[in-house]
Amino acid sequence: MKTLALIGFGNIGKKVFKLVSEASDLSLSSIVSSQNFDSSLPVYKNIKDIPHADLAILCTPSRLTPSLAEDLLARGISTVDSYDIHSDIYDVRRRLDAIAKANKAVAITAAGWDPGTDSIIRTLFEAMAPKGKSYTNFGPGKSMGHSVAARAIKGVKDALSITVPAGQGLHKREVYIILEEGSNFEEVSKLIKADPYFAKDDTKVRQVEDLSEFDSPGHGVWLERQGPGIEGVKHSFEYKMRANNPALTAQILVSAARAALKQEPGCYTMIEIPPLDFLEGGKEENIRRLV
Amino acid sequence: MKTLALIGFGNIGKKVFKLVSEASDLSLSSIVSSQNFDSSLPVYKNIKDIPHADLAILCTPSRLTPSLAEDLLARGISTVDSYDIHSDIYDVRRRLDAIAKANKAVAITAAGWDPGTDSIIRTLFEAMAPKGKSYTNFGPGKSMGHSVAARAIKGVKDALSITVPAGQGLHKREVYIILEEGSNFEEVSKLIKADPYFAKDDTKVRQVEDLSEFDSPGHGVWLERQGPGIEGVKHSFEYKMRANNPALTAQILVSAARAALKQEPGCYTMIEIPPLDFLEGGKEENIRRLV
Repeated sequence: MKTLALIGFGNIGKKVFKLVSEASDLSLSSIVSSQNFDSSLPVYKNIKDIPHADLAILCTPSRLTPSLAEDLLARGISTVDSYDIHSDIYDVRRRLDAIAKANKAVAITAAGWDPGTDSIIRTLFEAMAPKGKSYTNFGPGKSMGHSVAARAIKGVKDALSITVPAGQGLHKREVYIILEEGSNFEEVSKLIKADPYFAKDDTKVRQVEDLSEFDSPGHGVWLERQGPGIEGVKHSFEYKMRANNPALTAQILVSAARAALKQEPGCYTMIEIPPLDFLEGGKEENIRRLV
Repeated sequence: MKTLALIGFGNIGKKVFKLVSEASDLSLSSIVSSQNFDSSLPVYKNIKDIPHADLAILCTPSRLTPSLAEDLLARGISTVDSYDIHSDIYDVRRRLDAIAKANKAVAITAAGWDPGTDSIIRTLFEAMAPKGKSYTNFGPGKSMGHSVAARAIKGVKDALSITVPAGQGLHKREVYIILEEGSNFEEVSKLIKADPYFAKDDTKVRQVEDLSEFDSPGHGVWLERQGPGIEGVKHSFEYKMRANNPALTAQILVSAARAALKQEPGCYTMIEIPPLDFLEGGKEENIRRLV
């Protein structure tokens, strides 16, 4: 049985805790959280204090994740994370790759649903129709990464970002914010729209008193690719997902943990991992059942 | 540039020929076919006569494929095939694995759309919802494997098998046959229904004079998985594909050829291959673009 550390005990961390507790092939040995709560496991405030584990599942905000992963990998603790800043993923992968290899550990980064399982679908669709055109349409649903990014803006007390599909891979952002006392809405709105998370999209910011009426854990994606027609038959590929967002991310992190324990040292994105490795159970049984 | 041999020049083989001829990263060096035709490449009747190649793409009937792959692997020529008899895939994989390893070659078997890319989707859906339930609904469309199997039955002059989705993963087979002179329809029908390709499905056999009116290269699949609901949000995953059947199989074989040239010696099914490896182009560029 491999020992796992859980880093972060928020929305996703709590769901990872539940999944790993129910799993027969994984065992949680410690938790890192800034919050105080009762637990049968030792809870640490700082990752430096945790005892050695085979792997750590990082359920921390994306911006904190790479340096936490570096610290863990440097101790020979493998990591999985759902880092989601698309433009920086390759560079994070490269940084973690060097440290992982030097310390005989494995890192899987960007292991969520997008980036993550959607990336696998995009790759697979391209293998089936190299000359086609793909569109990823998100939502409607709350984006956790974008909500955290909006919350981190100076003057924002709390925020919620909803992704709305606009067709052909475009999407709008609707950001609901509660202002810090004394801060100016126009200034805060400008800062949010200039943030790398929002700069490329049509972003609307609205000031509200209560976020709960806009809050649902549901999210979804519709991924489509059209290839050129051949002999009168058009090639078309579609993938649709609807799920509880943090619950799906938590499940993908746990599946990525299973995969990480099977890889050679280094850092990987999900498209670099054999899909079979994400599953529990024997290789032969799974191949016989799924192929 | 890697050299490729094309084994078989039927429906799929001709499309593989076109795809490889247009590719900038692959080069065809020989063809094996029992038919006579003009070609700028050397055409051989027997695989024993082909010069060494890095890899051979097998576009031969499934039942002939494993032993042809064995002969090629024994010469150190890597192979990809779209062997599609689900119940035997694991055993074929095991046979080819030993020979591939002994001769430092790579085999990818069952590389079509089902088994093949559908297998990857089934695996991915299970990684996202381990407790869910998956259904693979085929068609409507011609099944090449089933048509070949029906054609191989004693008394059948020509045959065409159409797969019709019956919901929740069940499907019906409609087999249109032209009888050999002097053979008995009832006997032939019984033999078809008892064949491993048809024995598990609701199979209807119909005698016709002309197959062409039932013949279309279009095929499709609808793959669905439902996971348990969490906090009022149901988890649901769907994949739909519609394509020219031999053209899609040909493309998947070519993508598998690219992947085979990147693997360590041994035999693999598609779910054992990192999806990124199926693509042409640089690793960094593809990760930046697709993750």
